[in-house]
Amino acid sequence: MRWQDNLTVVLVETRNPLNIGAAARAMLNFGFDRLTLVKPYEVAFREARSAAGALSVLERARVAGLDEALADCTLVAGTATLGGRVRRLSSYWLPEAAARLRRHLRRERAALLFGSEKFGLSNEHLSRCSWLLEIPTDPRCDSMNLGQAVALCCWELARPAARASTRAAGASPRRPPSDQLERIAARLTAVLDSSGYINPRTRASHLLKIQRLVRRLDLSRQDAQVVEGMLRQMGWKIGVRL
Amino acid sequence: MRWQDNLTVVLVETRNPLNIGAAARAMLNFGFDRLTLVKPYEVAFREARSAAGALSVLERARVAGLDEALADCTLVAGTATLGGRVRRLSSYWLPEAAARLRRHLRRERAALLFGSEKFGLSNEHLSRCSWLLEIPTDPRCDSMNLGQAVALCCWELARPAARASTRAAGASPRRPPSDQLERIAARLTAVLDSSGYINPRTRASHLLKIQRLVRRLDLSRQDAQVVEGMLRQMGWKIGVRL
Repeated sequence: MRWQDNLTVVLVETRNPLNIGAAARAMLNFGFDRLTLVKPYEVAFREARSAAGALSVLERARVAGLDEALADCTLVAGTATLGGRVRRLSSYWLPEAAARLRRHLRRERAALLFGSEKFGLSNEHLSRCSWLLEIPTDPRCDSMNLGQAVALCCWELARPAARASTRAAGASPRRPPSDQLERIAARLTAVLDSSGYINPRTRASHLLKIQRLVRRLDLSRQDAQVVEGMLRQMGWKIGVRL
Repeated sequence: MRWQDNLTVVLVETRNPLNIGAAARAMLNFGFDRLTLVKPYEVAFREARSAAGALSVLERARVAGLDEALADCTLVAGTATLGGRVRRLSSYWLPEAAARLRRHLRRERAALLFGSEKFGLSNEHLSRCSWLLEIPTDPRCDSMNLGQAVALCCWELARPAARASTRAAGASPRRPPSDQLERIAARLTAVLDSSGYINPRTRASHLLKIQRLVRRLDLSRQDAQVVEGMLRQMGWKIGVRL
């Protein structure tokens, strides 16, 4: 299998059929095939798909919920420009992020997440991300066209990187799948709930913070199993049912 | 004067107003301002210019003949994808071409020439070029969207400057002091002890594993405080005294 096939490009709540088409074309230009649309405006997807010369990428694109889209990915990179930076997530500028992604894709699946044209990625979407890929745009005009952002990312991934990225491809440990991180966050939440840590009035914001925290830990697959086991045992002791 | 102001992006016979708009936006995203249109479809240019939120680049764009557009440039780089390669001209792949252009722009003017969506650059256009900038696309789909091609070229030109700006902005978060990590490990151990997670006979090896795990999490100073608070609360619920 080619490493490119381990990448899923995920477009969230895309409104403009032309952007969907442009993203698909840029993917093909640089050898990527797997596209998933999360809550696209229905008309936009229909139009993009029926456009003359619709690309193979579009024909095989699937529509899925966010969790379903990310379920088999062991790394989720969100995308933002400098203006959209979220300080709570680690972020890497495009070339470094691409190098990290590429190393990961040689062995495991990853998703690259693009927000809607108008709002970018919401806090809910960001809570699923391992880190942010940051496109360093000019402060005078820092919002990028969606199709162009996808093109830049695909190009950087495909850019035959001579030097830095060859460094020890096998060094970093395997990552847990996204749904395991969700389970860990859910178990931790349940334990904290039963412990009285979570104020019911600010519950929603707590939940988001916990999900982000779990992603930031950047657990290896093995550590994720250990942590899940610990939380299960704590939950059992405290009397949590999950 | 900024070196970026020595670059003129020249779009030849562009048909689609959206592509003109997308090219202008990508230029601004990466700090370029000078756009010239050669024989644009008149309607396309009018529409692009009157689009809501038309950019400063579009407002100042000029329409000119090819020779006039290139008159003050001492280097003209044509653009093509691999499929559109012209063997009579020297060509450089995008990163190398961008480096050459950048060196030139530090002292003199240069133009970057993009052909029409349908036909690319004609022989007449190519006869004005010093060399070709080649975007190495996948053979299965080697024709690129015009707006995306402009975005890629502007990005590669701006790349080294962009790096400086992210580096400065993206300092990594502060780390917690070692004794705080010790406290976290101790609290976690106590909670796991009370939960029955730790087998007394293999206790020593458990303690080591927990300490290592806590270090591996690589918590920021802020996250360390949150995690310590969570464990304190869980410990209180379970009846740990520490």
